[in-house]
Amino acid sequence: MSAYQKLEKKFYRLGQLGHLGAIVGWDQRTMMPKGGASARANAMAELAVISHEIVTGSDMADLFDAAASENLSDWQRANLREMHQSWRQESCLPAELVEAKSLAEAKSEDAWQEMRGKNAWDDFKPIFAEVVRLTREEADVRLAATDSDDAPISRYEALLALYEPGCSIAEIDQVFGTLKETLPALTQEIIEKQQSEAVTTPEGPFSTSSQEALVREVMLHLGFDFDGGRLDVSHHPFCGGVPEDVRITTRYSETDFVESLYAVIHETGHASYERGLPREWGNQPVGMARSMGFHESQSLLFEMQIGRSRAYVSYLVPLLEKQLGNKGAYTVDNMARLLTRVEPGYIRVNADEVTYPAHVILRYEIEKDLVEGKIEVGAIPELWHQKMIEYLGLETGNNHKDGCMQDVHWPAGAIGYFPTYTLGALTAAQLFAKLKTAISDIDRQIAKGDITAIREWLGKNIWSVASSLSGKDLIKHATGEPLNPDYFLTHLKDRYLDA
Amino acid sequence: MSAYQKLEKKFYRLGQLGHLGAIVGWDQRTMMPKGGASARANAMAELAVISHEIVTGSDMADLFDAAASENLSDWQRANLREMHQSWRQESCLPAELVEAKSLAEAKSEDAWQEMRGKNAWDDFKPIFAEVVRLTREEADVRLAATDSDDAPISRYEALLALYEPGCSIAEIDQVFGTLKETLPALTQEIIEKQQSEAVTTPEGPFSTSSQEALVREVMLHLGFDFDGGRLDVSHHPFCGGVPEDVRITTRYSETDFVESLYAVIHETGHASYERGLPREWGNQPVGMARSMGFHESQSLLFEMQIGRSRAYVSYLVPLLEKQLGNKGAYTVDNMARLLTRVEPGYIRVNADEVTYPAHVILRYEIEKDLVEGKIEVGAIPELWHQKMIEYLGLETGNNHKDGCMQDVHWPAGAIGYFPTYTLGALTAAQLFAKLKTAISDIDRQIAKGDITAIREWLGKNIWSVASSLSGKDLIKHATGEPLNPDYFLTHLKDRYLDA
Repeated sequence: MSAYQKLEKKFYRLGQLGHLGAIVGWDQRTMMPKGGASARANAMAELAVISHEIVTGSDMADLFDAAASENLSDWQRANLREMHQSWRQESCLPAELVEAKSLAEAKSEDAWQEMRGKNAWDDFKPIFAEVVRLTREEADVRLAATDSDDAPISRYEALLALYEPGCSIAEIDQVFGTLKETLPALTQEIIEKQQSEAVTTPEGPFSTSSQEALVREVMLHLGFDFDGGRLDVSHHPFCGGVPEDVRITTRYSETDFVESLYAVIHETGHASYERGLPREWGNQPVGMARSMGFHESQSLLFEMQIGRSRAYVSYLVPLLEKQLGNKGAYTVDNMARLLTRVEPGYIRVNADEVTYPAHVILRYEIEKDLVEGKIEVGAIPELWHQKMIEYLGLETGNNHKDGCMQDVHWPAGAIGYFPTYTLGALTAAQLFAKLKTAISDIDRQIAKGDITAIREWLGKNIWSVASSLSGKDLIKHATGEPLNPDYFLTHLKDRYLDA
Repeated sequence: MSAYQKLEKKFYRLGQLGHLGAIVGWDQRTMMPKGGASARANAMAELAVISHEIVTGSDMADLFDAAASENLSDWQRANLREMHQSWRQESCLPAELVEAKSLAEAKSEDAWQEMRGKNAWDDFKPIFAEVVRLTREEADVRLAATDSDDAPISRYEALLALYEPGCSIAEIDQVFGTLKETLPALTQEIIEKQQSEAVTTPEGPFSTSSQEALVREVMLHLGFDFDGGRLDVSHHPFCGGVPEDVRITTRYSETDFVESLYAVIHETGHASYERGLPREWGNQPVGMARSMGFHESQSLLFEMQIGRSRAYVSYLVPLLEKQLGNKGAYTVDNMARLLTRVEPGYIRVNADEVTYPAHVILRYEIEKDLVEGKIEVGAIPELWHQKMIEYLGLETGNNHKDGCMQDVHWPAGAIGYFPTYTLGALTAAQLFAKLKTAISDIDRQIAKGDITAIREWLGKNIWSVASSLSGKDLIKHATGEPLNPDYFLTHLKDRYLDA
């Protein structure tokens, strides 16, 4: 057995442990009774330890050395690169740091759960400061352990690489810079235009069963395969499971069907990516989704580019009448307006696609300076307040629970994650622009609820490529050029100003 | 760290892998879409390989040697015994035999799935013969690998030890011999008595939702804790999950509520045992249920001893009226008769408690001779036919699908399992006889649907003892004497002749 094959075998095992973790993790959020939580946490922790032991095995360094000079196919070579990156990321941290950080994160997330509702920033601050301290330490170790050409050049980049490998601060600064220049005026213009446009919100109640019938029909038309997946309910919508059995969730509110419906469309985008990954490379790193940003690009392509387009709304309206009963508000004009309403708000997850980047850029700027040591935790609320005024015209003041305490990411130690949301939105716009040139009657197809050709194109250009290309190469492969925020801005102008 | 502690750590890991396998196994039978089956099988196979590697690690023999002379508490000593047995059973088989047998079993179970419905015994025979051949080989290896005082003395005992450790053929022959002498005449007498007793079967349809409301209420009264468990639907009812999160299933037929209800009562017995295991020994072999026979004793104690007693029926009748609507057949007299109707039939799983042992004894006699090499696979149908006539007065002839092809056990390679059903029934009767002396007004409590005192007694005498005692010692510990079939026979006479 060659060194490469030995590595494949180890990663096959990791993949299978990942399968178990994915199903059990899904169970934890959808099925598990509350009394099972503590035993489950122990089982998941042991699973993490076993996986860590495999990937940091004492023979790994030698195997990578030997495999580097073996005769490999392009995909094997790419797989070796991904395995190596995974090994480096997992093995560079001393066990004590991993343990200290996961304890601090658990403590901080628990504290956040309790303190957010009470707006108790002062109590939360020292607990979170410990997470930041250990995150800086982690970033230092990661930075020192990198050796390749496009290795991270700063603490923050070392963290970013965990979510968006190969993405640099320079690149983010450039694209976010363009957005910062353009979006405030654009947002203002859109809001002024929309002020003259009356919108009626359909009045509920909408029964859970009718909403479920609606979203299941929508999923089917979007190409979701119920023989290889499920739809369930959870507190926060997510996409889990494995490519052969991909499971999405939503939540139902009897007063608002839009929330469950668009969560489902969003998660169906994630699910389609997972399901379209090359099965012959399943359980190998090269066969997995490229990055968090690319994952989000697929969910946002479904939710925003397709799902809120006028064409898609014209497909939806008869479905709404069929499943929810005619509530009088389901005209194409009204629903299209409702689904593209722009309004600056405090809460990121409720933001429309126009104001969403401001929420991300604000977090990016703060977390970057925090990790690099330019600011300390105590400075966050004032910075938040100032940037909210600057980017969205809203004063947060001491409303921390709708300010810097609103998201779970920081309390849980996921620093460096936020940019992927907006990278995903930009990528989705760029991919969709390309799709419009590739499929001449794309609007007509969407208006029929038929996205077969879109799925085929995405399957060929994104999903089946998996991690065989770097993120930079993947966007070029699919669209012919590097990530370019102009597509997103053009999309906003087309949809919100010229429509 | 002492050798014993090192062993505990290894078995802790095995326990956590077992947790993952239990949840994922539950998922497989309740939630998994069919397209997920093949990937899931691979993940489960890898989990089995990982567990096998841990338990057969090269340092295990030395650890057991060293631990034997360490200073241990009684429970640690018992845990060491259980760990050692688990290690011996798992490590004695050569990998090639394990693989050959699991392939043969998978092939045979698949063939059975397809051929049972077609009654295609001749096609199935050679495929099953391969399972038997490998089972004999396995039994030989197991037999050669045993070394303790109460080690198995024949191939069949070596297999039996996998399900009912410490149980001998001599013991089974003795108790089954008593049953064989007594049951045929007793059954005849019961049937004759029941001929004069009219029974009305409640007429459906019974909606699934009303049946579910009924069984959930019954579960609650039986002490099932929904904060640490679930009820779901599966093709065959089962009890799965882990003690902290124990999950039972049932199935609903709109024409028959008795099936779902008594499956739930049965599985709640299993679940109560799991839930009552000593949490401080969770994930260690000594903290697990004693054996398949003891597990079945708890389910049958709930289903048969409690559930079909006249006292319990008098508790049930108002519940049936409340949840299913008054269908006119819910008198205590009628329901008690319906739930204790005795009728010899071809199918084991449909058998009443009086004729059930005949089905088990028949299988036991055939599988024992098959493993010991006294008969070959080709002889099974004729033996089945003859024994069915002798024990139940029914001719199977060439109706193999309702004869020797009816159960999944043999096709799946579970040879040596069947006796545990009847050992469980006998144990349940013996425990319940003891319970009646321990709780003077037990009938009155059951008639109120209150089994708190019963649960307390079982918790103290069976559940919390777990595997700290051998099977032989456990029945003595709980009832003061060895397994004695007279309690079961007395129970049948009391219920079916003297009532």
